[in-house]
Amino acid sequence: MRAVIAIDAGGTSTRAVLVDQHGRRLGSGRAAGGNPTSAGPAEAVAAVISAIEQALRPAGTDPGAVETVLVAHAGGHDDYQPGIERGLAALGVRAPVQRAGDVAALFASGTHERRGTALIAGTGAIGGVIRDGGIARTVDGTGWLLGDAGSGFWIGHLVARAVVDDLDGGPSTALTPALLDALGLGPVAPADGAGVLDGRPAVLGALLRRLYALRPVQLSRFAPLAFGLAGRDPLADEVLHGAVAALAALLGRLRRIEGEGPLVVGGSVLVEGVLPLGPAFTAPLLEAAGDAVPVPVADGLVGAAVLALRSQGVEVGERLFAVLAAEVRGAEQPR
Amino acid sequence: MRAVIAIDAGGTSTRAVLVDQHGRRLGSGRAAGGNPTSAGPAEAVAAVISAIEQALRPAGTDPGAVETVLVAHAGGHDDYQPGIERGLAALGVRAPVQRAGDVAALFASGTHERRGTALIAGTGAIGGVIRDGGIARTVDGTGWLLGDAGSGFWIGHLVARAVVDDLDGGPSTALTPALLDALGLGPVAPADGAGVLDGRPAVLGALLRRLYALRPVQLSRFAPLAFGLAGRDPLADEVLHGAVAALAALLGRLRRIEGEGPLVVGGSVLVEGVLPLGPAFTAPLLEAAGDAVPVPVADGLVGAAVLALRSQGVEVGERLFAVLAAEVRGAEQPR
Repeated sequence: MRAVIAIDAGGTSTRAVLVDQHGRRLGSGRAAGGNPTSAGPAEAVAAVISAIEQALRPAGTDPGAVETVLVAHAGGHDDYQPGIERGLAALGVRAPVQRAGDVAALFASGTHERRGTALIAGTGAIGGVIRDGGIARTVDGTGWLLGDAGSGFWIGHLVARAVVDDLDGGPSTALTPALLDALGLGPVAPADGAGVLDGRPAVLGALLRRLYALRPVQLSRFAPLAFGLAGRDPLADEVLHGAVAALAALLGRLRRIEGEGPLVVGGSVLVEGVLPLGPAFTAPLLEAAGDAVPVPVADGLVGAAVLALRSQGVEVGERLFAVLAAEVRGAEQPR
Repeated sequence: MRAVIAIDAGGTSTRAVLVDQHGRRLGSGRAAGGNPTSAGPAEAVAAVISAIEQALRPAGTDPGAVETVLVAHAGGHDDYQPGIERGLAALGVRAPVQRAGDVAALFASGTHERRGTALIAGTGAIGGVIRDGGIARTVDGTGWLLGDAGSGFWIGHLVARAVVDDLDGGPSTALTPALLDALGLGPVAPADGAGVLDGRPAVLGALLRRLYALRPVQLSRFAPLAFGLAGRDPLADEVLHGAVAALAALLGRLRRIEGEGPLVVGGSVLVEGVLPLGPAFTAPLLEAAGDAVPVPVADGLVGAAVLALRSQGVEVGERLFAVLAAEVRGAEQPR
């Protein structure tokens, strides 16, 4: 038996799968966020090792037979890979640890082809041109402050700004009661008329304190408020049309660099937020895609398995890819 | 002799002046930033006390004759006023300490009238409606993340984003060599062709590390790069036109609330950056001002003195205001 361990170490959860060279799933595991930047290196290593330990748990599994361990993640930290190697040694796994970027893994989750483009919008936004199965060019992914236009942060930030502006005498928006409610604040005008802040509603002061107490990137948690009001609030629509325009511009730049091959799309904002809005919102994105049909994927776990097998000389064509995708996605159900 | 101490405690410097009821300057002082939010309360108190100590230094000054001490500043901190009171006691000043907001003090630096509007754009952006000499309504000033459109942060942030986008395959801009040069980075393409970051210039990675190491609000230091390229770079112009549009919208909101009285403007971005650009840039701002002619002022020190004297029952009309303004502004030259 030849087997590999593939891990998708995301910001909110970590998934691991043990597969053989025929694409069969031998075990799987799930743990908390395993991204070294967002979880911190020690927590991230613990999550990765916990997920791997679960994947190795089925009876008859031989940790010594694992040929490689491939961890797909964004960012990095000097203590991350050495920490994973120590944890693996304690589990009896002596295979080397490889890294893959989140964009390359996501692309390989959607297709067996080795050339094309990938677009991800979750908390951040990043695109990639893939050639020979690896990243040839990244676009954006430059973070909440300096890039990531169209991302969850970008949307949530504009939601928060629109609400602050509304409370400051700007255009009224249904995002305001929605955000105040989400934070347990409000109502805007207390029944007794009390509480103003230099002529403004007192709740504005409370809102500012609450929002500035967050790490800025946490504003992404308010993106769903805009999606929830799509088609029903002009300012929510303006934010969403702006996000789609930014993602379409990013995609256009990608497709001008590489016009061939499939387009794989991922990230909760894009897959669960933008695409279900339908053509009234998504038209610019589909236009930028040209003749490529977006292939949505939930995460990079299938792709991590594809890349792990390929690193061991296993040819992953259309047929093996289909088996692998079905097996790995079935990992939600325990075997 | 009746005398008051007025202090303008700004983010970068603190100025104090000792004046009598005829508007004569008896002493003056200057120290480091005295804003409790940006300098921290202990440093801010030390700066305020240092400036006051200098103002009391001229021979014949009786600290016991000081009737009130008025500190004009933005924000606040629980330890700030008690700290100033302790420092004053050590200097022999037994007068009460009063606070005035930065917007009210700035307005009173430009006019003896007690009703009108004030617009400030420095690192942040804030507007105020003044009635009965005090703030009746504030607009914006909600900080770099959630407001402050058109401010120094806002401009510097867009400068940084435009440069990151340029290095990531976006529109070329002369802001890029300007920013890289300001940071001692670059050139964009090393002569040996070495160094790429996922297909992008390696200097992009270095730039991102440098910019994310700053506190976000420090991006305001790059606003002058846009002003320096006004009329000579399309992206710099786009940022500047956007800033003027945002400040014009803020001013329009102020003037709809209060259409009467003078308009006093302040802050380095507005007074030293935007207004000198001339009508090709400032037209929307002048239109929003309506029939009010903007009165630029350097800071809130004159206004702090006006407010301090008024608090002691001194009527500050056109004539006394003119004397006071000339005397206080003369504080740059030692008496």
